[in-house]
Amino acid sequence: MKIDAVDFFYLSMPTVTTDADGSQDALLVRVQAGPHIGWGECEASPLTCIASYVTPMSHGACRPVGESVLGQPLNDPRDIAKIRVAVQFNSMDLLQAPHTFSGIEIALWDALGKALSEPVYRLLGYKRCEPKLAYASQLFGATPEETQARAKAARQAGFRATKFGWAGYGEGSAAKDAAHVEAARAGMGEDAHVLIDAGQIFAQDVANAALRLPALEKAGVLWLEEPFLPDALAAYADLARRSPKVKMAGGEGCHSSPMAFNLIDFGKVGFIQIDTGRIGGIGPAKEVADHAVAKGVTFVNHTFTSHLALSASLQPYAGLAQHRIAEFPFAPRQLALDITSNHIMPDKDGLIRLPEAPGLGMTVNPSALKPYLRDVEIAVAGKTLFRSANLPAAV
Amino acid sequence: MKIDAVDFFYLSMPTVTTDADGSQDALLVRVQAGPHIGWGECEASPLTCIASYVTPMSHGACRPVGESVLGQPLNDPRDIAKIRVAVQFNSMDLLQAPHTFSGIEIALWDALGKALSEPVYRLLGYKRCEPKLAYASQLFGATPEETQARAKAARQAGFRATKFGWAGYGEGSAAKDAAHVEAARAGMGEDAHVLIDAGQIFAQDVANAALRLPALEKAGVLWLEEPFLPDALAAYADLARRSPKVKMAGGEGCHSSPMAFNLIDFGKVGFIQIDTGRIGGIGPAKEVADHAVAKGVTFVNHTFTSHLALSASLQPYAGLAQHRIAEFPFAPRQLALDITSNHIMPDKDGLIRLPEAPGLGMTVNPSALKPYLRDVEIAVAGKTLFRSANLPAAV
Repeated sequence: MKIDAVDFFYLSMPTVTTDADGSQDALLVRVQAGPHIGWGECEASPLTCIASYVTPMSHGACRPVGESVLGQPLNDPRDIAKIRVAVQFNSMDLLQAPHTFSGIEIALWDALGKALSEPVYRLLGYKRCEPKLAYASQLFGATPEETQARAKAARQAGFRATKFGWAGYGEGSAAKDAAHVEAARAGMGEDAHVLIDAGQIFAQDVANAALRLPALEKAGVLWLEEPFLPDALAAYADLARRSPKVKMAGGEGCHSSPMAFNLIDFGKVGFIQIDTGRIGGIGPAKEVADHAVAKGVTFVNHTFTSHLALSASLQPYAGLAQHRIAEFPFAPRQLALDITSNHIMPDKDGLIRLPEAPGLGMTVNPSALKPYLRDVEIAVAGKTLFRSANLPAAV
Repeated sequence: MKIDAVDFFYLSMPTVTTDADGSQDALLVRVQAGPHIGWGECEASPLTCIASYVTPMSHGACRPVGESVLGQPLNDPRDIAKIRVAVQFNSMDLLQAPHTFSGIEIALWDALGKALSEPVYRLLGYKRCEPKLAYASQLFGATPEETQARAKAARQAGFRATKFGWAGYGEGSAAKDAAHVEAARAGMGEDAHVLIDAGQIFAQDVANAALRLPALEKAGVLWLEEPFLPDALAAYADLARRSPKVKMAGGEGCHSSPMAFNLIDFGKVGFIQIDTGRIGGIGPAKEVADHAVAKGVTFVNHTFTSHLALSASLQPYAGLAQHRIAEFPFAPRQLALDITSNHIMPDKDGLIRLPEAPGLGMTVNPSALKPYLRDVEIAVAGKTLFRSANLPAAV
């Protein structure tokens, strides 16, 4: 079969706030290949991705993403890899391209899995999928008491691991940050994982980040996430050297597999966190998982949005029993929950499992999404390059 | 003064081909701050950059580039740095943002230089600007004879250095590539520099790239440029180890200063090539020049388009006498030449010098650009977010 159509659906909550909450909008991608439909999602700016898909060519190495996708054969996982190489080369100078291609690539795997009646993780070479320990992602509270209450709530909801981040961490004194970390540990109890996310707040300032290490070590946190800019490798490596007990985590900003290899090989992270909706899809994420295994680093998904994105992001390391912890979108906006009619929910032990149905195993629910749809129209030199399609009645 | 307006002008040749020639279109940026006008250029996909400037916010770390720019103070170089940090943080998850901001940042320096009556290089801390040895960038010919003729033509035009690249290099046999490299040397003569650009053709395949080393060494080429993907640091370092005589060059794909630091620190390049129209502007490029000096690596501009872009890309290392070689757009499309009414031309010794006029020292020529202007219109949910402004009658 061939790739006959690629459609983008820009979905948004009625109001989008400055919260560091990526579930407030979504760019849903639908691929049609012969009789099969695949769905994917870009964890990226919807309008910018759409523009990069339809933009006029600037030159041979700056072509629109669509040019490397439409009409290509799709019969085998190698076909997906070929399209990816074509995008990489033909859109070399189009910076947004990997974010745009991510949702397409995921949809290609979904369509191919349905065509071959296999879940995606099997197409990746895994024989079975292993349960993962879901961690709940949350923002710190306004006060340590509020942080402690949020930790307790996550614990009571069955989570054995919780991540706190943003909301001023790293902006004030190390003592203030320490109080929040201590509160998170108190709320979770001693037998649970606590993870801390600094959201790139220290940029490249290793000394400032290092001031937080004693409190993190005292609270026994599992990792410190994204202390620095995503490509500040020297800073990552320096802080990792100063922190033998608390490992560094990072990688959600990676938009290629070599960029993630660098964080492992040169940045010395202990956990590599990959968002399939940004790195270029499931194929490059699987390459990172393979590299992590080879280098003794733990692979973790990055997912803050829908359960379609969650399924995609768990596939690349589905079969790795030793890589056990997984990010779970704890309290996304309603839009993210409405994208699929089925959901991947933690069991009583806080474990999540991928569906065994073909493709990504998720049922997209177009009729529930109509209220969220934002029409887009783009014209250049009087010619319409993009106009939003209608959501289909059903999948 | 404050930043009152930012306008984008999407310019294009009537026909854009798949040639690896980035001068076929341009995204010109005009900034108005009080009574001063500054001009810059993004070396990037015009439509995608415009979309990223006006896109609705996705969340607090994925805001449109415009939100961090409009209304900000502009009185001092530190103001430009502050805006850059704001874009970096507020548009962290908007991949296109550095390409978009590049043209804006360049225009901010131009406006500030005009306001303070100083050329940009002085605002960067250089006391004087040093002449640079211009190298002519060309594509390989279809046959070795054609490559040799092109080398001779560049030599006769006064160039003491020429770069050849693309056009199949790395795609066929090493012997075929060797014949072209030998022809380039024969055409240039023994007393000139020959540079070779592989255009990322080997992706991450070090063994394949290494097959080309003996011919490069035999011809005494100064550097091998972009053998690999821009973030394939391990591959770069591996090939550099295998090639003690011919140094590696790379960096045009860098969209942040840490990414360029990585190519120096971990990728072991000998020449770091920065395009101010991609890395985020002149400020981050100056950081890379400082780092290159500290690490004993040579800084080089990357410029394949207009003389406005050429002036911007020479500023970050204008005062570094030891960093002498500079890329010169040898045969750009007419559009690139028409952007400015003055040009930076090599003298009889093949040397180029920055203008001493305030700002970038270039006079943009709006009336000549009208035939190239492509109108853009972008609407989301029925609301027009962008509609091209008219080109001004004069600057």
